[in-house]
Amino acid sequence: MRSRPGRDNATIVLMAKSTKQAKRESGGADKSGSFTQALATGHGFVLADCDPRSTPGYNGDKAAGAELMAATAPELADLQEQLYAESKVGGKAAVLLVVQGMDTSGKGGIMRHVVGSMDPQGVHYTAFKAPTREEQEHPFLWRIRNALPQPGEIGVFDRSHYEDVLIARVHNLVPTATWGRRYGQINALEQTVTKAGTTIVKVMLHISSDEQKARLTARLNRPEKHWKYNAADVDERERWPAYQEAYQAAIEKCSTEHAPWFVVPADRKWYARLAVQQLVLEHLRAMAPQWPAATFDVEVEKARLAAT
Amino acid sequence: MRSRPGRDNATIVLMAKSTKQAKRESGGADKSGSFTQALATGHGFVLADCDPRSTPGYNGDKAAGAELMAATAPELADLQEQLYAESKVGGKAAVLLVVQGMDTSGKGGIMRHVVGSMDPQGVHYTAFKAPTREEQEHPFLWRIRNALPQPGEIGVFDRSHYEDVLIARVHNLVPTATWGRRYGQINALEQTVTKAGTTIVKVMLHISSDEQKARLTARLNRPEKHWKYNAADVDERERWPAYQEAYQAAIEKCSTEHAPWFVVPADRKWYARLAVQQLVLEHLRAMAPQWPAATFDVEVEKARLAAT
Repeated sequence: MRSRPGRDNATIVLMAKSTKQAKRESGGADKSGSFTQALATGHGFVLADCDPRSTPGYNGDKAAGAELMAATAPELADLQEQLYAESKVGGKAAVLLVVQGMDTSGKGGIMRHVVGSMDPQGVHYTAFKAPTREEQEHPFLWRIRNALPQPGEIGVFDRSHYEDVLIARVHNLVPTATWGRRYGQINALEQTVTKAGTTIVKVMLHISSDEQKARLTARLNRPEKHWKYNAADVDERERWPAYQEAYQAAIEKCSTEHAPWFVVPADRKWYARLAVQQLVLEHLRAMAPQWPAATFDVEVEKARLAAT
Repeated sequence: MRSRPGRDNATIVLMAKSTKQAKRESGGADKSGSFTQALATGHGFVLADCDPRSTPGYNGDKAAGAELMAATAPELADLQEQLYAESKVGGKAAVLLVVQGMDTSGKGGIMRHVVGSMDPQGVHYTAFKAPTREEQEHPFLWRIRNALPQPGEIGVFDRSHYEDVLIARVHNLVPTATWGRRYGQINALEQTVTKAGTTIVKVMLHISSDEQKARLTARLNRPEKHWKYNAADVDERERWPAYQEAYQAAIEKCSTEHAPWFVVPADRKWYARLAVQQLVLEHLRAMAPQWPAATFDVEVEKARLAAT
C-alpha cells in the first residue's frame, strides 16, 4: 500500500539505525520495524491508499500505546537534554518537527500530549496562522526562516510553509505559477536547513472525511468546544478532494532525501500521538547526541567547592 | 516570620477569592489558606527570616504534594484553555510567570515539571541570558517588552528584568545611579502590563547556601550533569550575601499592589514545584476565565454539517 524511498537515500540510513535501536528498546512496538520505516513516504506514494484507521509499525492497542509512550518518555527527555547540552559546547544539531493536517486532524492533541511532554526549555514552538500584513510584505518563507530552531532546540511548526502550497493552492490565493514555484523553493530551504545540522521531521496527520465530520459534530455538541468551531470549516469540507490533491502533490514533490514526509494515520488519536512521539524519538536516537565532557578539572572544582 | 501586605491592597482581594475556592477544591492543601496567601510578601518582609526548608501553606508530604499536583492538573488545563479561548473572542487577559532564583535553585525543574505540564500552544516561554550586543544597545526593558505574553497566553520568564537589579547590582555592571533607577522603571512597566490585562506572578525560588553547595556537589559527581556546571558558580558563592541583599531590595521595592513577589522556599524541590503550580492555578481561578458563548446558531450548523 505504501511505497518506500529507494535504498540509496539517506532516509534509509536513518531508518536502518533507528530500526536497530528501536528493536532493542521499544518493547511494545511492532517487532517488524520502526515507525520511521513504517510511515515514510517515497516515490509512488499514494495518499488515497493510506487507511486513516490503520496503525503502521504498531500492533498493540490503545492501552499498550499509552504504556509505550510513558515508557519511552525518559529516553526522549534524556536525548532532548543531550541535544541541548551539546549545543552549549558548539554542537549545531537541532530538530524541526513540522505538523500538518486537515482541521480536526489532531494537531492540538499532538501539541498538548507529545510536544507538551518535552522540556519547554528546549522547545521552540511556533503556530503559523494566516499571514499578518507584515508577513505578506515578505516572501512566504521569510516568517519560516525567522522561526527556525536554534542549535540544541526542538523546533515545532504547528502548520507551516506547506500552507502556502495547500490553502493557497486550493483557494487560488496566488497565481498557479506562484504556488507552482514554491515546491522547489521549499525543497531548497529545507536542504539548507538540514545541511546546517537540523533534522526535519515532517508529519501529516491523515484523517478521513467521516472522522472529521464526527469530530466537528462533537464540537457542536459540547458548549465548551464551541469556541473552536468555525462555520467556515463546514464550507471547507466541500473542498476535501482538492485538499487531498494538494497534500498528495506536497508529499510527492517535497518528500526529499534530506526531509521526507511521514504520513500518520490519525483517525485513532492515540495512535497518531504515539507515532509522532516515536518518530521524534527515533530521529533523536539516530542523531545520537552525547553528554559533553567536562571542560574543567572535576577534582579541582570539588576542592574549590568544598572550601566554600 | 513573614509579613503580609496591608488589607487595603488588591493582592488581598485576589487572595480572598482564591482562598475560598482553594478550600473547596484543594484537598491536600493546608486548610488554613492558599499558597498565594502563604507566600505573598509585603511591607516588612525579611528574606533572611524565611526558612528555605519550610513548606508554607502546605502540611502534606512529598507524596501528597505529587498527588495534589496531579489532581489539580486537569483544572489548570481547563483554566488555561479558557484563558486562551477568551482571547479568541476579544479577551485581553494573560498571565506572566516570572521565575528568579540563585543558581541551582530549581528554575529548570519548574520549567520541566510545572510549565511543562501546561499546553505549549498557550505558553510563551522566554529564557533571559546575558544581554546580546543588540539588546545592550537598547534600554534594559526593551527585550522584556518584546517577550510579553499576548492575550490568552501564559508567558514564562526564566530569569527576567530582575537580573538588571541583581547581577547588575552585585557585579557593578552599571553605575549605582543606573540600577537605582531601575526599580521604579520596573514598577512602572509592570503596572502598565497589569493594567492592560496581564496578571503577573513573580516567584523567587529561595534556597539556602548549604543546599546550593549540595546541589553543585551533586553536579560534579554526575558526568551527565557536568555540562551544567560552571566554574564561575563557585566564585559566585562568595557573593552570596550580596545577592541575598539584592533580592531583599528587589522584593522590598518591587512587591507592589499590582505585582507582588512570592518567595517560595526551595530547598525541597517537590514543595517548590507544587507551590509554583498552585500559585498559577490560584491566580487563574481568581481571573475566572469562561468558555466563550457560540457566535453562531448551533442548530443551523449541525444541519449544515449533517448535509456534508
